[in-house]
Amino acid sequence: MEDLSFVPDLPSGPLDKYRKTSSFDWKRLKLALEGDNIELLKLKYKIWLTLEKDPLFAHSTVSPSVDEQKRITQLQLKRINEYRFHTTEMVNSSYSRRTRTIMTINEAVQSLNPSVSVKMAIGIYLFSNALLSLGTERHHKFYESTFVKRETVASFALTEIAHGSDARLMRTTATYDPQHKQFVIHTPDFEAAKCWVGNLGRTCTHTLLFAQLITPDGTNHGLHGFLVPIRNPETMETNPGLIVGDMGEKIGVNGIDNGFIMFNQYRIPRENLLNRTADVTEDGVYESSFSDPSRILGAALENLSAGRIGIMQESCHSIASAVTIAIRYAATRMQFGERDNEIPLIEYELHQWRLFGYVSAAVVFRMYIENFAKIYLDIVEKSNSGMKVDNLSEAVSEIHAMVSCSKPLLTWTVLAAAQQCREACGGHGYLKCANLGDIRSNHEATVTYEGDNNVLSQQTGNWLLRQFESARGSRSVDSPLHTVAFLLDWEKCLAARFRCTSTQELKTREFIITTYKWLLCWLLKQTHEKYEAQLAKGLSKFEARTKCQVYKWRELTKTYAEYLALIFFLESLDKKDKELQPVLETMFCLYGLWSLDQHLVELYQGGYSQGESLARLLREAVLQLCAALQPDVVSVVDALAPTDFVLNSVLGKSDGNLYQNLQKAFFSQPGAFERAAWWRDIVNVRSKI
Amino acid sequence: MEDLSFVPDLPSGPLDKYRKTSSFDWKRLKLALEGDNIELLKLKYKIWLTLEKDPLFAHSTVSPSVDEQKRITQLQLKRINEYRFHTTEMVNSSYSRRTRTIMTINEAVQSLNPSVSVKMAIGIYLFSNALLSLGTERHHKFYESTFVKRETVASFALTEIAHGSDARLMRTTATYDPQHKQFVIHTPDFEAAKCWVGNLGRTCTHTLLFAQLITPDGTNHGLHGFLVPIRNPETMETNPGLIVGDMGEKIGVNGIDNGFIMFNQYRIPRENLLNRTADVTEDGVYESSFSDPSRILGAALENLSAGRIGIMQESCHSIASAVTIAIRYAATRMQFGERDNEIPLIEYELHQWRLFGYVSAAVVFRMYIENFAKIYLDIVEKSNSGMKVDNLSEAVSEIHAMVSCSKPLLTWTVLAAAQQCREACGGHGYLKCANLGDIRSNHEATVTYEGDNNVLSQQTGNWLLRQFESARGSRSVDSPLHTVAFLLDWEKCLAARFRCTSTQELKTREFIITTYKWLLCWLLKQTHEKYEAQLAKGLSKFEARTKCQVYKWRELTKTYAEYLALIFFLESLDKKDKELQPVLETMFCLYGLWSLDQHLVELYQGGYSQGESLARLLREAVLQLCAALQPDVVSVVDALAPTDFVLNSVLGKSDGNLYQNLQKAFFSQPGAFERAAWWRDIVNVRSKI
Repeated sequence: MEDLSFVPDLPSGPLDKYRKTSSFDWKRLKLALEGDNIELLKLKYKIWLTLEKDPLFAHSTVSPSVDEQKRITQLQLKRINEYRFHTTEMVNSSYSRRTRTIMTINEAVQSLNPSVSVKMAIGIYLFSNALLSLGTERHHKFYESTFVKRETVASFALTEIAHGSDARLMRTTATYDPQHKQFVIHTPDFEAAKCWVGNLGRTCTHTLLFAQLITPDGTNHGLHGFLVPIRNPETMETNPGLIVGDMGEKIGVNGIDNGFIMFNQYRIPRENLLNRTADVTEDGVYESSFSDPSRILGAALENLSAGRIGIMQESCHSIASAVTIAIRYAATRMQFGERDNEIPLIEYELHQWRLFGYVSAAVVFRMYIENFAKIYLDIVEKSNSGMKVDNLSEAVSEIHAMVSCSKPLLTWTVLAAAQQCREACGGHGYLKCANLGDIRSNHEATVTYEGDNNVLSQQTGNWLLRQFESARGSRSVDSPLHTVAFLLDWEKCLAARFRCTSTQELKTREFIITTYKWLLCWLLKQTHEKYEAQLAKGLSKFEARTKCQVYKWRELTKTYAEYLALIFFLESLDKKDKELQPVLETMFCLYGLWSLDQHLVELYQGGYSQGESLARLLREAVLQLCAALQPDVVSVVDALAPTDFVLNSVLGKSDGNLYQNLQKAFFSQPGAFERAAWWRDIVNVRSKI
Repeated sequence: MEDLSFVPDLPSGPLDKYRKTSSFDWKRLKLALEGDNIELLKLKYKIWLTLEKDPLFAHSTVSPSVDEQKRITQLQLKRINEYRFHTTEMVNSSYSRRTRTIMTINEAVQSLNPSVSVKMAIGIYLFSNALLSLGTERHHKFYESTFVKRETVASFALTEIAHGSDARLMRTTATYDPQHKQFVIHTPDFEAAKCWVGNLGRTCTHTLLFAQLITPDGTNHGLHGFLVPIRNPETMETNPGLIVGDMGEKIGVNGIDNGFIMFNQYRIPRENLLNRTADVTEDGVYESSFSDPSRILGAALENLSAGRIGIMQESCHSIASAVTIAIRYAATRMQFGERDNEIPLIEYELHQWRLFGYVSAAVVFRMYIENFAKIYLDIVEKSNSGMKVDNLSEAVSEIHAMVSCSKPLLTWTVLAAAQQCREACGGHGYLKCANLGDIRSNHEATVTYEGDNNVLSQQTGNWLLRQFESARGSRSVDSPLHTVAFLLDWEKCLAARFRCTSTQELKTREFIITTYKWLLCWLLKQTHEKYEAQLAKGLSKFEARTKCQVYKWRELTKTYAEYLALIFFLESLDKKDKELQPVLETMFCLYGLWSLDQHLVELYQGGYSQGESLARLLREAVLQLCAALQPDVVSVVDALAPTDFVLNSVLGKSDGNLYQNLQKAFFSQPGAFERAAWWRDIVNVRSKI
C-alpha cells in the first residue's frame, strides 16, 4: 500500500464520534478521488502547504476592495509561477501528462482562490493551448513567454457586447492591407466591443482576438484568431488606437479584471494571424486547408473543451468544500431533541436528505471527471502525435456532446449544493467567514461562461437525436466511447417495466442503469416525435428546435449527463480497493436514485410504471441510503476536503470545535469591539452631512 | 377613475414594441397591486422621488467597504426619519391604518436599500411593537423615543450562538436581586452569547433582551423580555459589564451591524422587565397572568408574525425588481435566429418558460399578501381594542399556520427567481451594475431569519394535521378564515379524478382548485398515516415527526402555501377592474399549473391520474399560458417595477436602451480606463512584496 503519511492527520475532537463509525480509511478514499495518482495528490498537498506558509496567500477577514483583489490575484499568480510547481520535466513531458499536471495545479489553486486559477487558466493555459492548435512556428515565442517562462499574462477575446453565444454574428473585423502587410482591426461600434475578456481590464499585455478576416477583395472569410498586443509590458500603458477598460465589480471572482476593448483602425503585422489552418499571403490571397470557414471556427472553439473540463474539475472542488463545511457543521451543531437532550443536525432525516445527495454527487462527479479527463487527454494526445485513432472525428463529436451536457449538469448541481449547504448552516452559514457565500458567488459564473448552460446543452441534444435517428434507421450509432451503444437496442430498452416490490431491488446497479436507459430512449423518442411534428407543420429546423426545448431536449440532455456520470463512476469504482467499494456503491445508488427522483414524472408519463409503488419505493430507498451513509459521511468529507487553511471556513474546520472557532473568528474581526469610527455622525443631533 | 398622473410615464424606446401589444393600462395594474389604495401608492412614489433627489441616497458603482455601508445605512435611516414620511396623523391613527402605512414605507425603502428597511424594521417597528404588546405604561417613554420621536435606534436580542431555532434552551439569565431591586443579567459562556442582533454591532443604544427569568428562590420562570441599555447615547461607548462586538462581513445586507453580546453580571432596574403578562414584586415574588411560562414566550414571539408579513412584502418587491430586469433585458437582447435575423430572447419558448412562471408568482404573491395583511391587521386591531372577535384564538392559530408556510414559500421562490433572472441575463447579469447579484444576496437572509424556513414550516404541518384529525373525527375544523373548511369534505375531495381531455379544461379555476384540494387531502392522509405508523412502532411524538418530514410534511406545507396564495389571489382578482381581469386570470392559471407541475409525482402516485395525458396536457397548458402572457408581460413588469432610480439596474431601465446604458455604465466605472495604481508591482521584474 502506498505511504500516505504526507497527508496530514486530522486533529482529534468532537468529530471523532462520527469518524470512528467509518467503514474505510479516509486517506485511501482521498487517493482514490485523485485517480489513484499519488504523485498528483502529493503535488496538491505540496502546493497547499507551500502557499499556507506564504503571507501573500493569507486570508483576509474583510473582503478587500475589488481593485485590491485584482492586485493580490495578479501577485499571487506571479508567486505561484515563481514556485515552479510546473517543473521543467513536466513542461517537457507528453501532452497528456503535462496537461493532467496543469489540471492538478489548477484544482489546487482554485480551492484556495478561484480568481487566481481563472487568471492562470485564461492567461496562460487557454492562450498557450490555442497557440499550439491554431498557430505555427512563428508564434512559438509567445508560447515560450507565457507557458514556459511565465513572463507574460495574456487574454482571450471572443465575446462581444451584443453577441455572447452566437459567435457567427460577431462584428469585429481584421481587414488585410497588402500595402503595409498588416491587418487592420476595427470595432464598428460599442455593440461590437469585445467584452468579458479576463485579464484585459488591467493586467494582460496581449490578447488572442477572434475577428472576421476580410481580404482586400472584400470577402469575409469568417472568424480567425489573431495575436494582438495590448499594453507595453514595461509601462503597462495601453497602446494607441485602443479603448480598453475594466468592466468593474461583479457578483464573484473579482480578482479577475474582466475588460472590454474597442479597436480604432488598429494595425498588427500580417504574421500575427494564427495560421495553422488558413493564411493570407503577402499579396492578400486567402489560403485555407478547410473549405468551409465555419469549420475553422469549430476547430478554434474545440479548444474550449479542455477549458470546460477544467471548469468541471474546479466545480468538483467547489462542491467538495461546500459539503465538507455543511457536514462538519451538521455533526457538531445540536438543535432540538427530547427532554432537552439535543440532537446533532446530522441525525435528522430531513437534514440528511438535504445534504447527502450532494455528498454523493461530489464523489460521483469527481470520479467521473477524473476518468473522463484521462480518456479525453489520451485521444487528444494520440491525435496530436499523428497516431491513427479509429473514428477520431466521431470520438471528438461524442466528447463534445458529453462535455456540452456535463458542464451544465455539474455546474448547476454544484450551485444548488452550495446554496443548500449555506441554508443547512443556518444564520452562521450567512457569515463571510463560513466561506459558503464566496464559494457560491465565485462558482456562479461557471453556469454562464465557456458556453451558457442552456445554449451549450442544446448541442448535446443535436448529437443524441442524430444517434437516435441513425439507430432507428441504419441500425448504427457513431459512439466510439460507447456511451449510447445501447440505442441499438432502443426498442428493447423501452420495453423495460418497473416490477420491483422492495427497496432492496431498487438499490442496485441493474435497476438504476436499466431505468436510465429506458428514460433516455423514451425522452429521445418523445423529443424526436415532437421535433418531426413541428417540421411537419412547416416550421424550419431552427424554429422546430426552439419548440422542443422545454420538457424535452432539456430534460434529455440532463438525463444523459447523469447517466454518463453514473456509468463512468461505475467503471472507476470497480478498480478501487475492496475496502472502499461498499461506501462507493452506496453513493452510486444514492446519486442514481436521488437523480431519478427528479424524473419520476416521465417514468409515470411514459408508462414505465403505474400506481403508487415506484414513487414510494424509490423515495423510501433514498432515505434508507441516507441512513446507510450516515456512519461514513464524516469520513467521506474528510476525503473530499482540502486542508483547513484552504477550506477557510470557521464552520468547517477539521477539529470540529465549532464554537471555539466561531468565538475566535468574532473576537478577531478587525475592530470588532471598537466604537464605530463614524460615531460622531450618528449621535443624536441632527444629521451632519 | 383615479388620476394616476403622479406615476411618471415611461420613456419611449425599444420596449414600445411590446408595450403596444398589452391588453391593459399598466398604471391601473400598478394601483391594483397596491390593493387599490391610491394614498399608499402616492406615498411610495413620494418616498422614491424624494430620496432620488437626495445625494445621500445616490448609488455607488463600487461596493463601499462593509464599515462604510453601515455608516451610510445608519445615516439614511436618520434622514428618512427626518423626512417624516410617517406623519403625525399616521402615528396617531388606528393600529391597522398606522401599521399598513408603516408597511408601505418599509416596502418603498426596501426596494432602494434593504439594509435600511431591516434596520428600521428591527430598530423601530419590531422593538416598539414589542413594547406595546409586552410592556406597560412605565415603558411608554421608550416607545415615544423610538417610534414617535425617532431619537433612538434599538435592537432585539433573542438568538444565541448555540441556539437559533429552539428558544426554550436559551441560557442567558436574568436573576432578580431583591436587595438592590435589580435584575442581574448574565451569560454563562460564549455559546450563550446573544448573536445576530441587528443594530447591536455599532449603532443601537438599547436592546430588547430575552432571558430566563430566575427569582431569588432559584425558580426559572422561562424566557421574558427586558429593556437593556447598551450604549451611552451621547458617546456611543458601550456600558461596562458588556462584551459587545460586531459580527463582521456577511453574504448580504452588510449595512446592518449584526452584533453579539455577553453580559457579565450586568445590572438593570427591576422596572425594565416588560411586565404586561408577568411581573416580579419588589420582594422577588413572581406573578403571572398565564399559568404556563411557555405561553408567555408564545405571546412574545407572536409579535414576530408582523415581522414575517413584512418579510413577505419585501420579498414581493425583490421578485418584482428581479423579473423587471430580466424581462426588459429579454425584450431588448437579441440572440440567434435564421438567416441572421436575430430574435429577442423573450420570443423563445424556453426563455418564456424560465421567466414567466416567476412573473406570475410576483403578481399572485403580491395580491395574496396585500389581501392577507388586511385580514391580519383587522384581527389584531379588533383584538387590541377589546372588541369581541369570534374564535380569536383559533384565528390566531390559523394565521400563524398560514404565515409559517407562506414565508418559506415566498422567500424560497423569490430566491429561485432572482437566480433564474440572473442566469437569464447571461454574463451581463453577473455585473454588479445589473443589480441581480445584490437583490439575491440581500434577499437570501430571509430564508433563514425570523424562523428558519425548514423549521418554521413544520409548525404549519402540526396545525394542518390537527385540523385533518378533527375533520375525520368530530367532523369539525377550527378554521375561521376558511382556508381548510374543505377538509370537512375530505373524502369527496379525494374522490376527484383527472378527466380532462384538452388543455382548455386545465386552464380553469375549477381544475386548479379541485386538484389542489385533492393534493392537500392526499398529502394529509399520507402524512397522518406515516406519523401514526411511526407512533405505533413505539417512537415518541418528536421522533415520529422527524421521520415524516421528507416527501410528506414538507410537501404538504408547501402545497398548502401555494393553495393559500391562489385562493386569496382569486378573492382579490374578482374585485379588480374588468380590464385587468383577463391578464390576472392568465397569471392565476400560469402560477397554478406551473406550481402543480412540481406535484405531478404525487398526482400519479396517489392515483389522481394514470397514463400520459395529465403530464402532457398540464405541460402543454403551461407553455400555452406562457405564449398567451407574452404580449402583456412587458406591461406587467412595468406595473411591478419601481422607478429606474430605485431599480438601479443597467439592464432593466425602462427606456430599453440596453447597449447605450451598458456603455455609459462601463465608461463611468471609477478609473475604468486608468492604468492600475499598482502597475509597478506587476511589470515583469521579480515580485516585490
